[in-house]
Amino acid sequence: MRIGWIGTGVMGASMAGHVQKAGHTLAVYNRTREKAAALVAGGAVWCASPRAVAEISEMVFSIVGFPHDVEETYLGAEGVLAASTLPRIIVDMTTSQPALARRLAAAAAGRGVCSLDAPVSGGDVGARNAALAIMVGGERGVFDEALPVFRVLGQNISYMGPAGAGQHTKVCNQILIAANMIGVCEALLYAARSGLDRQAVIDIVGKGAAGSWSINNLGPRIVAGNFAPGFFVEHFIKDMGIALDEARAMGLALPGLALVHQLYLGVKAQGYGRDGTQALMKALQALNGEKV
Amino acid sequence: MRIGWIGTGVMGASMAGHVQKAGHTLAVYNRTREKAAALVAGGAVWCASPRAVAEISEMVFSIVGFPHDVEETYLGAEGVLAASTLPRIIVDMTTSQPALARRLAAAAAGRGVCSLDAPVSGGDVGARNAALAIMVGGERGVFDEALPVFRVLGQNISYMGPAGAGQHTKVCNQILIAANMIGVCEALLYAARSGLDRQAVIDIVGKGAAGSWSINNLGPRIVAGNFAPGFFVEHFIKDMGIALDEARAMGLALPGLALVHQLYLGVKAQGYGRDGTQALMKALQALNGEKV
Repeated sequence: MRIGWIGTGVMGASMAGHVQKAGHTLAVYNRTREKAAALVAGGAVWCASPRAVAEISEMVFSIVGFPHDVEETYLGAEGVLAASTLPRIIVDMTTSQPALARRLAAAAAGRGVCSLDAPVSGGDVGARNAALAIMVGGERGVFDEALPVFRVLGQNISYMGPAGAGQHTKVCNQILIAANMIGVCEALLYAARSGLDRQAVIDIVGKGAAGSWSINNLGPRIVAGNFAPGFFVEHFIKDMGIALDEARAMGLALPGLALVHQLYLGVKAQGYGRDGTQALMKALQALNGEKV
Repeated sequence: MRIGWIGTGVMGASMAGHVQKAGHTLAVYNRTREKAAALVAGGAVWCASPRAVAEISEMVFSIVGFPHDVEETYLGAEGVLAASTLPRIIVDMTTSQPALARRLAAAAAGRGVCSLDAPVSGGDVGARNAALAIMVGGERGVFDEALPVFRVLGQNISYMGPAGAGQHTKVCNQILIAANMIGVCEALLYAARSGLDRQAVIDIVGKGAAGSWSINNLGPRIVAGNFAPGFFVEHFIKDMGIALDEARAMGLALPGLALVHQLYLGVKAQGYGRDGTQALMKALQALNGEKV
């Protein structure tokens, strides 16, 4: 199939690579062109805009940064829906606002295009290993059509409901991660202060009732002093902001999420916005007067 | 071996049962005698006090409720260390204070008895399936002696360091669970409000980067409205209290744990102290004006 891919950052580059390896013809666009170089070297057609991608693609996928990037990608003057020849299906895989997903679906429908919101979970490792979880909102028939491409990207793919349901599910995912991360950092702070071997702690508690993906995958990175981004702090702050905005709109108080969001704002204030989410440790260390 | 077992509650009854099935001669004591009935029916000798258990046992294990119960079990007038004939090794598996574990080890050593602190993780299911994680503090040689019995109770057994190190590790475990639980409840609250199928959300997010034992095991119980105790709210409040006391003594601020502790106090205030830890959902529902 002729597939368009917009956004070739940490996640998108790996994902588009899997689509390419699966034998699809790829048209790519990314704000920073160099990040698409490997895909172009592998045969992808470079396009100067999302609009240009759309004009030569049957299905367009995107995974960009922030909701305003999603908006520009699809609804901007050089956006997908401004194309003279339109794709049949658009799939935004960015973690973005449920309300925007619904607005995008309406705008696409107005031009005869089908839309899915399909945010992912699994981070850089999941993207590289084609082991992402993909949570999808939109019409079920459209989901079925896109499923063969999703299967190239992940193993755990679920249809969640109408437009926006994928994003709502991703919000749930991020609420869980936010909580899990503060637990990881506070537990490892405590472990260090009480003289325990932190990796030994992870090894034993990570397999039992305290276990989580976060402690087992990001805990060891913290122990190793590795704060390289699997997932950027500033993107996670964006996700938690979306969650808190949506929750507020529903009249829902989420005190745990609000606390973790505040601490991550601290991480960013300290200059670590482009570190990985495990850098929450730095905010808690600073809070506790420890040298970061 | 002649093994003494003190404490046959939700956890202890299953654990002692495994020791019995492994062929050891069992002497048991429990505050509420009926809870030891199955073990006695299986051949265990009922004893009227911890002291009486100690007098006919080579190794004594305990898993009771609160630190003051541990203190009474070992240091009381009818306690283990008051026995005329002493066991060679005592192993307290209660989740209790690291400082008490060290005090107990010193008192035991004064009478020529070796002591281990060996709290467990895995809840009722882990106890029943002999799949507990066991984190052990004390002398390594003593750990090696007790290991064959630990292997009857769990699969994931780790020597963590000197007296108190097992309890410190369990504190880390509980810090993680506290955080994971608030994430589970807030995510499921959000899921319900946004019209998602909560079990479908658990199924997709539980396998990825948001996954945890808590979401995969307690999430479905919440969805089913099942608040029966795997692990009592009031015991978890005790554990978090120990963690916060120890952290404060170290000069360590743990804002996430402090918040969750407060919310669990709310759960107890609402009268759900003998529900399972998943009843945290009730505090968050009440906070949000939802019918509990």
